[in-house]
Amino acid sequence: MKLLILNGPNLNLLGIREPDIYGHEGFGQVISHLQALYPDITFIYRQSNKEGEIIDILHEFGFTADGIILNPGGYTHTSVAIADAVRAIASPVVEVHLSNLYSREAYRQKSLIASACIGIISGFGSDSYRLAVEAIRNKSDIKTL
Amino acid sequence: MKLLILNGPNLNLLGIREPDIYGHEGFGQVISHLQALYPDITFIYRQSNKEGEIIDILHEFGFTADGIILNPGGYTHTSVAIADAVRAIASPVVEVHLSNLYSREAYRQKSLIASACIGIISGFGSDSYRLAVEAIRNKSDIKTL
Amino acid sequence: MKLLILNGPNLNLLGIREPDIYGHEGFGQVISHLQALYPDITFIYRQSNKEGEIIDILHEFGFTADGIILNPGGYTHTSVAIADAVRAIASPVVEVHLSNLYSREAYRQKSLIASACIGIISGFGSDSYRLAVEAIRNKSDIKTL
Amino acid sequence: MKLLILNGPNLNLLGIREPDIYGHEGFGQVISHLQALYPDITFIYRQSNKEGEIIDILHEFGFTADGIILNPGGYTHTSVAIADAVRAIASPVVEVHLSNLYSREAYRQKSLIASACIGIISGFGSDSYRLAVEAIRNKSDIKTL
Amino acid sequence: MKLLILNGPNLNLLGIREPDIYGHEGFGQVISHLQALYPDITFIYRQSNKEGEIIDILHEFGFTADGIILNPGGYTHTSVAIADAVRAIASPVVEVHLSNLYSREAYRQKSLIASACIGIISGFGSDSYRLAVEAIRNKSDIKTL
Amino acid sequence: MKLLILNGPNLNLLGIREPDIYGHEGFGQVISHLQALYPDITFIYRQSNKEGEIIDILHEFGFTADGIILNPGGYTHTSVAIADAVRAIASPVVEVHLSNLYSREAYRQKSLIASACIGIISGFGSDSYRLAVEAIRNKSDIKTL
Amino acid sequence: MKLLILNGPNLNLLGIREPDIYGHEGFGQVISHLQALYPDITFIYRQSNKEGEIIDILHEFGFTADGIILNPGGYTHTSVAIADAVRAIASPVVEVHLSNLYSREAYRQKSLIASACIGIISGFGSDSYRLAVEAIRNKSDIKTL
Amino acid sequence: MKLLILNGPNLNLLGIREPDIYGHEGFGQVISHLQALYPDITFIYRQSNKEGEIIDILHEFGFTADGIILNPGGYTHTSVAIADAVRAIASPVVEVHLSNLYSREAYRQKSLIASACIGIISGFGSDSYRLAVEAIRNKSDIKTL
Amino acid sequence: MKLLILNGPNLNLLGIREPDIYGHEGFGQVISHLQALYPDITFIYRQSNKEGEIIDILHEFGFTADGIILNPGGYTHTSVAIADAVRAIASPVVEVHLSNLYSREAYRQKSLIASACIGIISGFGSDSYRLAVEAIRNKSDIKTL
Amino acid sequence: MKLLILNGPNLNLLGIREPDIYGHEGFGQVISHLQALYPDITFIYRQSNKEGEIIDILHEFGFTADGIILNPGGYTHTSVAIADAVRAIASPVVEVHLSNLYSREAYRQKSLIASACIGIISGFGSDSYRLAVEAIRNKSDIKTL
Amino acid sequence: MKLLILNGPNLNLLGIREPDIYGHEGFGQVISHLQALYPDITFIYRQSNKEGEIIDILHEFGFTADGIILNPGGYTHTSVAIADAVRAIASPVVEVHLSNLYSREAYRQKSLIASACIGIISGFGSDSYRLAVEAIRNKSDIKTL
Amino acid sequence: MKLLILNGPNLNLLGIREPDIYGHEGFGQVISHLQALYPDITFIYRQSNKEGEIIDILHEFGFTADGIILNPGGYTHTSVAIADAVRAIASPVVEVHLSNLYSREAYRQKSLIASACIGIISGFGSDSYRLAVEAIRNKSDIKTL
Repeated sequence: MKLLILNGPNLNLLGIREPDIYGHEGFGQVISHLQALYPDITFIYRQSNKEGEIIDILHEFGFTADGIILNPGGYTHTSVAIADAVRAIASPVVEVHLSNLYSREAYRQKSLIASACIGIISGFGSDSYRLAVEAIRNKSDIKTL
Repeated sequence: MKLLILNGPNLNLLGIREPDIYGHEGFGQVISHLQALYPDITFIYRQSNKEGEIIDILHEFGFTADGIILNPGGYTHTSVAIADAVRAIASPVVEVHLSNLYSREAYRQKSLIASACIGIISGFGSDSYRLAVEAIRNKSDIKTL
Repeated sequence: MKLLILNGPNLNLLGIREPDIYGHEGFGQVISHLQALYPDITFIYRQSNKEGEIIDILHEFGFTADGIILNPGGYTHTSVAIADAVRAIASPVVEVHLSNLYSREAYRQKSLIASACIGIISGFGSDSYRLAVEAIRNKSDIKTL
Repeated sequence: MKLLILNGPNLNLLGIREPDIYGHEGFGQVISHLQALYPDITFIYRQSNKEGEIIDILHEFGFTADGIILNPGGYTHTSVAIADAVRAIASPVVEVHLSNLYSREAYRQKSLIASACIGIISGFGSDSYRLAVEAIRNKSDIKTL
Repeated sequence: MKLLILNGPNLNLLGIREPDIYGHEGFGQVISHLQALYPDITFIYRQSNKEGEIIDILHEFGFTADGIILNPGGYTHTSVAIADAVRAIASPVVEVHLSNLYSREAYRQKSLIASACIGIISGFGSDSYRLAVEAIRNKSDIKTL
Repeated sequence: MKLLILNGPNLNLLGIREPDIYGHEGFGQVISHLQALYPDITFIYRQSNKEGEIIDILHEFGFTADGIILNPGGYTHTSVAIADAVRAIASPVVEVHLSNLYSREAYRQKSLIASACIGIISGFGSDSYRLAVEAIRNKSDIKTL
Repeated sequence: MKLLILNGPNLNLLGIREPDIYGHEGFGQVISHLQALYPDITFIYRQSNKEGEIIDILHEFGFTADGIILNPGGYTHTSVAIADAVRAIASPVVEVHLSNLYSREAYRQKSLIASACIGIISGFGSDSYRLAVEAIRNKSDIKTL
Repeated sequence: MKLLILNGPNLNLLGIREPDIYGHEGFGQVISHLQALYPDITFIYRQSNKEGEIIDILHEFGFTADGIILNPGGYTHTSVAIADAVRAIASPVVEVHLSNLYSREAYRQKSLIASACIGIISGFGSDSYRLAVEAIRNKSDIKTL
Repeated sequence: MKLLILNGPNLNLLGIREPDIYGHEGFGQVISHLQALYPDITFIYRQSNKEGEIIDILHEFGFTADGIILNPGGYTHTSVAIADAVRAIASPVVEVHLSNLYSREAYRQKSLIASACIGIISGFGSDSYRLAVEAIRNKSDIKTL
Repeated sequence: MKLLILNGPNLNLLGIREPDIYGHEGFGQVISHLQALYPDITFIYRQSNKEGEIIDILHEFGFTADGIILNPGGYTHTSVAIADAVRAIASPVVEVHLSNLYSREAYRQKSLIASACIGIISGFGSDSYRLAVEAIRNKSDIKTL
Repeated sequence: MKLLILNGPNLNLLGIREPDIYGHEGFGQVISHLQALYPDITFIYRQSNKEGEIIDILHEFGFTADGIILNPGGYTHTSVAIADAVRAIASPVVEVHLSNLYSREAYRQKSLIASACIGIISGFGSDSYRLAVEAIRNKSDIKTL
Repeated sequence: MKLLILNGPNLNLLGIREPDIYGHEGFGQVISHLQALYPDITFIYRQSNKEGEIIDILHEFGFTADGIILNPGGYTHTSVAIADAVRAIASPVVEVHLSNLYSREAYRQKSLIASACIGIISGFGSDSYRLAVEAIRNKSDIKTL
């Protein structure tokens, strides 16, 4: 099983910026932790601050990965083009956020991308990524209400 | 560990209504499945079609449960009073939805309740509940971006 | 043939409140009048001021009644949950209003529930109920424009 | 008793267009059917694709007809002038629609004309017209809530 | 003189929740304090978390009480049905709030219910209730500007 | 104890204009009545039709008065500058209105000033001023919900 | 000097409809009165309920009349096409209304046509037409502020 | 007959500012011209840049003048208080503008004051004032459509 | 092959009005030019200023023409009825505009009709019509993105 | 003559993605087809998923190409920066879309870029590009209405 | 060189109010500091809480000062009349704010006045005034992008 | 002292494009001019048309530069991601614009980025950059009102 974890803009600063808030561990440690938990999964990690590069990466992996965990960062609220890319590829995509979007500014409560994904997980810090791995592994057959 | 699973309006029809879409298993089976997966957790299950009764139940369990998994159904989009109740209690609450709210009608994309919760999980069918159990068990110490 | 007539909040005051406007006859007389007109139909009458109870009643009768005549009163404009209930049941539902919603305040001109019904009849006083009975009896095969 | 049935734009295509959906019977058959049901009523039928002609017809019959059944078609949502005409005449007007406006596009859910009518009947196919005849014949003395 | 004090959702938690903010005295003490101040008034106290039950209580007392002091809590902003109930009864109703609605979130600054009341008092903590008692006792004959 | 009562535009016409509606007593009588009720309070009365003069008066008394009762009249809905003045001074300010703002035009239901005040009292005619005196005398220590 | 007076929909009913409000004199008398006041002006009078016919008439006279007095009735608020016609012709056009648009419903306060005219006169009953004649005769050379 | 002409902010600059556009004649010449045309009318002219002073002047003359011609300048779009003053006085008020408001910026197309006036005349340069004098002299008895 | 070219309001003035801008050639010359370019196509040309007549013409040709080129002029932005007519007929319709709608006023950027057409061509002067002929002749089999 | 064809995000997937819908031919075939039709034109083809790279390409060719055919894909609705680039360059730009934007989601009906182009062609599949070539070759001298 | 510094409402309280935040120095010291920095400039300082007086001062100095530095305070967001005054005078005006308007409440992010100024400087405390002096001294000849 | 000047999309065209408007000097000359004025400051200049590259540059310099002068060009109005980057770095950022945003199109008057900066300077041509240098050198200790 092959999963792409794709982080959007500013998420490369995790662990560097405001360590008393975000902790001293960077995203590398999140990946290591996931790899340890799920040894049978091949994790590929990409991060980009560029909207178009995120689209390129989605195209690159979107026909071969078994799932994609996407944190679009600030592009969540402004990018029709990333949403189109998610719709154009074959791999199932789960949108994740470290914070609870609904308890932030009004303009962050709208996601242009989520409707193209199978689901959204928001508010559980780095655990949001683990939950997304669980979700892709277990894709429920019971349809939604 | 004690967890309350609280379902809002119309979720009592699961398994009865449109079985070819939602499957023949009712919500009882979801609970059984969760209990089997997490034998060390005491699950309490409540369902109500009544906004005020949902508030009563949140008050009843909101100071003793270790976590609450809330699917507010149609009240998600209209109830300030349930949101106030979530804010008034001590137990952490995770909002879950069977379907991906962002791929439905515009009026379903606004949640009045989510900002009072620690996080939201939406779109994974009945697996959304299992993910919420996971989220509460692992409440990450890494804050969100 | 079995028809449920289900009235929402404040409609229990008919005949008591402002008799010079609404007349001295309560809703009981409306039912009697309908029963006399249609002796072959079994009429069931329910009224509730509670949103959740209205949902319960829709669930209770929504798989056995041949039709439901629903006046949601003030919930017309605010209840996603009742609309979901109407969508979840099998019986055809007609929304009725005593007054013409379009000649009232702006917030009363939006119905969250009507799109889940087969049709809407608004503005004919208690005769709106008789017209709804007629509509259900005659469900036209000619589709709409 | 004299009733005008006045159809707005595109309703002349009924029976020609998409017969598998709308049936093979044109509006002439609807009129015949009504005439058979109500032999004591004189039905006058007019159809026009022109906003101003609809106003002319309302003026022509609006002081002598005992009632007018108006399906304004696409002008429902855009014509202040027809609404003014309905307000200017003496005959009571009932607005009818073949389809349920509330289950169509957002811009079709607003009626500029309905507030000038005594009531609105929407969603029952050609039976909407019969219900309107019933409504005018029975104009209830019980005022609305 | 008979006055009903009717509190809406979550107000039963007063004195229990966040005592350093709201104080250790529950609403019972507010009632006792009012009874001591106004020995000639019969106070009736009701609290409910349920929208429909609030309507039932308004119906029950709304034709015999000399005044009603209503704190609709979170229903203030969402309930057309409670507003209809206030309009349907005979007793004068004063809307009160512990906090100043205008210094809270935007969605709390709109009251659907206030236009049906004779006045609104907002922002004085539990003293808002005493001021409402005063207001009902002194209903000024000078109309407003 | 020293209280400033500050009336905004057009309130100087009270008693002159439309006496059958507003009564024959001018605002002088309201002040006399309050002085008689509260002999221990020094009342200062000011009225101005000028936005800037109202700000000047707030500055003049805002550091020495024990409370200010402000009826901003038509400036309620348009003056950011008066709201800034209320925020800039030290005395607690209560906003009062003779009429119930919520039962008037939509543009009168928004108060730009109220969020800077400790509370608002609206709808009790001239008794609104007495209630404000009561409110300032009793400033409750119980915070709001 | 040649002036066209062009009335839009429903204005043909003046004098017939609601005579206690609008008086017994029809628009013919308004024209006669104007002709008597201004014997040197050739008045041409047209009325149409049809948007397209109004455009035709504007085209017909818009290159030869010295001025046009246009009361677009209900088309004021909905017709881009009439506004385009006013912009396309050479004669100066004054928009007039019998009533004061600003004291009517919100949707009547927007004029799509006025920006294409040299000015607007609204609220003076049939005298609005005389004022428009005066305005065209005196087209001031002082530009506007 | 006594008429007040009351100009709002910046209108004192007429004749000074941009003379090639507005001409070299100040507003004094407009008054002289009107006085010459209507020798039997006593014209009183006031100008103020201050919102509150405009209200004071309306109060001063509003119970004795036979009519008031008000150009509220920039306050047209922002002053609820002037509108209240117009409503509070007895003299009929006509709102005038030199320019056609409808051909300017969107925020200038809304008048908060016009609904309190008997009519509005906009777009005829200084001739707008003469037309307003004519309108007040002739207050038509025919009501508006 | 038979093509209808149908122009809406004011387009009859082409060549007459503002010749320095629009040129001296009327629409007749555009048709001649097209006929010369495509001798094998039968062009039918209609123009009407009347919304309802445009609908009549669409009905008349909409079941026999191989394509319709429609410039709805000012009705583009206001006519639901023409859009309904386009949907009701069988011939493919291309919407054309001489100017680029997107570089004009905001209210011209919305087309109510375009969603019923197969495509839209806007901004190329009279060449827009030739491009529409080309488009209908070549209806691509490659579906759109 | 030199023409740049510039495709935005996700258009590189044409021919790969959903071949039963979009056909098996990639965009290379569209270019070949155009080159065959117009042997005298030098076509340059660029595609980029990156907003900033699209701007770079517009700068690179925008002062030497005889025309640019731009399909901005998902950036159509969100990019002020591309619109600024189109305004900054000298070559005429035509915006094209494979699909009819007006028959898709509401947020796709707004183009931030179109107002900077000479025209827009939308809805004709890959033939939209050929029509744009035609439009640039023939830039009509007749201005638009 | 003569510069007017004109402060709007509540800015007279600087140095008095909240000294731990705003410092103990009043605006007098800001002026002294500027005078020391620019001995060749004649500074004139005015402050008013009155909208109309600000207009008067703009008129008084607006034809002789070499520049005006205007902090409109709370009138920034509500005064069309001050904006008109800025447009009416000859001196260049720079709008300044002590705070960064964009990091405050939404209603403070709109400036009605800024579009009439040559530029805006916001967020640098009292240094905003020095920067405005610099800006006026150096009025760049390079136009803006 | 080290300052980064960072220009966004299309600003590389300065000096090339429309030289009669923007002058013949490119941005290089602006930098030279600043370096000559402030020999003790190390200026670093970057320009990019790519949103993501601007974020990369902010990350690169945002922890070592003493200040950043950012002109986000067209991304000002659409980029949440750049605003997040400004919030994530340590260096103070001043937003500058050559033109006065408030006198341009409505969509340019909203800045998504400004609230993350310490201040904004807009409208002074290339002098806006010098003023920003001054602002960063003098960061006032007096807080804003």
